[in-house]
Amino acid sequence: MTDPPPDRLARVFAYIDARRQSFLDQLLDYLRMPSISAHGVGMASVAAFLAERLTALGMQTRAIPTAGWPMVYGRRDDAPGKPTVLLYGHYDVQPPDPLDAWVTPPFEPAIRDGRIYARGAGDNKGQHFAQLLAIEALLACHAHLPCNVVVLLEGEEEIGSPHIAAFVRAHRDLLGVDLVVTADGPVHESGRPSLEFGVRGVASFELRARGANRDLHSGNFGGVAPNPIWSLVQLLATMKNARGEITIDGFYERVQPPGELERQALAALPADIEWVKRELGLRELDAPPERGFYERLACWPTFTINGFHGGYGGAGSKTILPHQALVKCDIRLVPDQTVDEILAKVAAHVRRHAPEVEFVPQQGMDPSKTPIDSPFAPLLLRALAAGQGEEPLIIPAMGGSLPEYAWTKILGVHAFVTPYANHDEANHAPNENIEVERFFKGIKTGAALLTYLGGG
Amino acid sequence: MTDPPPDRLARVFAYIDARRQSFLDQLLDYLRMPSISAHGVGMASVAAFLAERLTALGMQTRAIPTAGWPMVYGRRDDAPGKPTVLLYGHYDVQPPDPLDAWVTPPFEPAIRDGRIYARGAGDNKGQHFAQLLAIEALLACHAHLPCNVVVLLEGEEEIGSPHIAAFVRAHRDLLGVDLVVTADGPVHESGRPSLEFGVRGVASFELRARGANRDLHSGNFGGVAPNPIWSLVQLLATMKNARGEITIDGFYERVQPPGELERQALAALPADIEWVKRELGLRELDAPPERGFYERLACWPTFTINGFHGGYGGAGSKTILPHQALVKCDIRLVPDQTVDEILAKVAAHVRRHAPEVEFVPQQGMDPSKTPIDSPFAPLLLRALAAGQGEEPLIIPAMGGSLPEYAWTKILGVHAFVTPYANHDEANHAPNENIEVERFFKGIKTGAALLTYLGGG
Repeated sequence: MTDPPPDRLARVFAYIDARRQSFLDQLLDYLRMPSISAHGVGMASVAAFLAERLTALGMQTRAIPTAGWPMVYGRRDDAPGKPTVLLYGHYDVQPPDPLDAWVTPPFEPAIRDGRIYARGAGDNKGQHFAQLLAIEALLACHAHLPCNVVVLLEGEEEIGSPHIAAFVRAHRDLLGVDLVVTADGPVHESGRPSLEFGVRGVASFELRARGANRDLHSGNFGGVAPNPIWSLVQLLATMKNARGEITIDGFYERVQPPGELERQALAALPADIEWVKRELGLRELDAPPERGFYERLACWPTFTINGFHGGYGGAGSKTILPHQALVKCDIRLVPDQTVDEILAKVAAHVRRHAPEVEFVPQQGMDPSKTPIDSPFAPLLLRALAAGQGEEPLIIPAMGGSLPEYAWTKILGVHAFVTPYANHDEANHAPNENIEVERFFKGIKTGAALLTYLGGG
Repeated sequence: MTDPPPDRLARVFAYIDARRQSFLDQLLDYLRMPSISAHGVGMASVAAFLAERLTALGMQTRAIPTAGWPMVYGRRDDAPGKPTVLLYGHYDVQPPDPLDAWVTPPFEPAIRDGRIYARGAGDNKGQHFAQLLAIEALLACHAHLPCNVVVLLEGEEEIGSPHIAAFVRAHRDLLGVDLVVTADGPVHESGRPSLEFGVRGVASFELRARGANRDLHSGNFGGVAPNPIWSLVQLLATMKNARGEITIDGFYERVQPPGELERQALAALPADIEWVKRELGLRELDAPPERGFYERLACWPTFTINGFHGGYGGAGSKTILPHQALVKCDIRLVPDQTVDEILAKVAAHVRRHAPEVEFVPQQGMDPSKTPIDSPFAPLLLRALAAGQGEEPLIIPAMGGSLPEYAWTKILGVHAFVTPYANHDEANHAPNENIEVERFFKGIKTGAALLTYLGGG
């Protein structure tokens, strides 16, 4: 595939520059509409709003029901013989709590110091809306899109995409695409854009322990009644050791070591560990100490205790023997681990080591990996450089999770993530934001991606 | 020492039987007065009320200031050449929360099904008030007490008696006594009275761990930033193993095995383990399985985690890497362990195994032990049998903690505990209560104790 003629994209960029105020206003309007999947707030009206936007872009549009919130789907087949790209995004946002930590209200977007503050500004409305505006700009300048485009906007990403696999399996006919590109996440701390080839998976679960039928006096029953907190501590200690190795039976069986290309890409990533430690207020990184920074995030599974709660937590001391305790955990997965495999291994481990503890599986997402030598990669990297004005980084896998496995494992196509938001977008946190300039660069990048995929 | 003439006590018992309604009304009045040391509620006025009661009993009375709430002290030296007994009790009560779990309000005493329900009914107002009424009855019948009596009522037992050691050291001149008797706690599950020769000590502390300066995304930082919950889990796992052995370095060094008399007494105690398990809803007792029920409570130290709190504890999953976590613990001590020794050993263990974890010592009480062959024991046992109408059990040590070390270790005298409340008094819990009949038996027992100590 050859690169497109430069003036083709230049015209689109000029159009985008000329429409900054209008594009910004449209984003602010979108950000004013709450769409909190976890609370069921505003979802249907935002789905309807998006379907209308896709229709206005001349797409064959459908809001497709799922067992949860609908998928908003649009398609334009403007370029027979050219690749078809699926642009994935999600229109649901995280709950905005704690509200009092916001400088301005989460659904009243405000611009301060060159940033747009609102829930969803970065994750993910500002990013997929940039893709839609890119389509609008391309159509305004050239009447047709340079490649074929499917837009798919999910309403349940923030609650773990529980229905995306079933949706993809049920609608393969609508999803005949050559690759998937997702604009999501923050850019690298250095500020440079990146192309991300994989994501870690995630498997969440709870461990619940019970002792007596009520809290007891530790003096009258200490040494007599079992302590559910101790049960969980002893169990957890069999699951990960002090050196940071996960010791769940058979845990590492399917973990694939990074290939040569991944190793090279990881080594090439700029890592300012001292800056990271300063920023997080850490003296040391987590064990084991010998692993590289990006190797930790891209190539190794992790076992995080998200929360541990049981017994007394107030001021002073209270000499109770608590009667119940709860641990919440997530395990981040790397290829070729799967959610089903790991949850089964955890369940078996718990049964063997602490049969009295209840194992409660929760949601999961398989990991995903696209080869670094994918034929689409060079095109996408040049498009990113054109749209962002800076050389992109190659990131073999990001530490977080996205439902990329739906594309790589179910559809069987290559899938890429590229972030448009600033590294300090505060996604999932109060005062979420996106830099105004990064939003505009996102629109240009969206236009560049489709243009380069369409070729010369 | 010979037993007193039986008619001497019979007259007092008849007097008590004749005054039931008045004694009950007086207790209800006392229970209406809140005195919550933890919240500083009502303490001064209840101390003043008690000082007035002791003065009315013809005692040399003082409310003696401490660094906390005052000690109410009274003394009658009616019987030169006879023993002097210190009757210890505490006028403070536990906070009554949760209020909505009470059938009737905690400071509006109510009688239902033969029980008096109120905060402090059993712990300890109903019990030390019975001692005061016993003195009143003895004086009404015989004008003088059969032995010399010191009454000492503390206002800080429910917050760990932080000033009792300093008080005893500073006021040895007021505390020239031959023995101490404390009426406190519930009777044995069998309903039989008991004489308790020892108590376990207690040492409380917190372990606090910190990771990054804020909660992080487990995908973006899992495997990079240390997890304070894992730090605490790994540390705790070095402190007690799955077999129930406490593995803090040097922990058992000073633990004394029970002597022959204690062993015999423990073996003689009726233990219905199946009933205990049913009552608590337990399938098994805590490890190690080979220990006898009363041996666990009397002869072995325990390490209880009272609470563990960190990270997310709500519904569903939240994939955070928490930035701080807290564990609250108590260790129950047996002779010859001490609070200072054990807290120092825990501190050293934490420094060695997890220097990043903060160790915060809290309050403590040393254990206490009076020999089972104490010369006072046979007298007290016969007095209990007379007052309670049932043969008392000999309990070498109770599992809970009371500041008995102030008597045995600082004053250097023998100290005994004998419970007047029903085994299900719900002390420290909502709907605390004492059976009306046990309250009256308590008054008779108080009279019997002083009468037998006075001898024939």
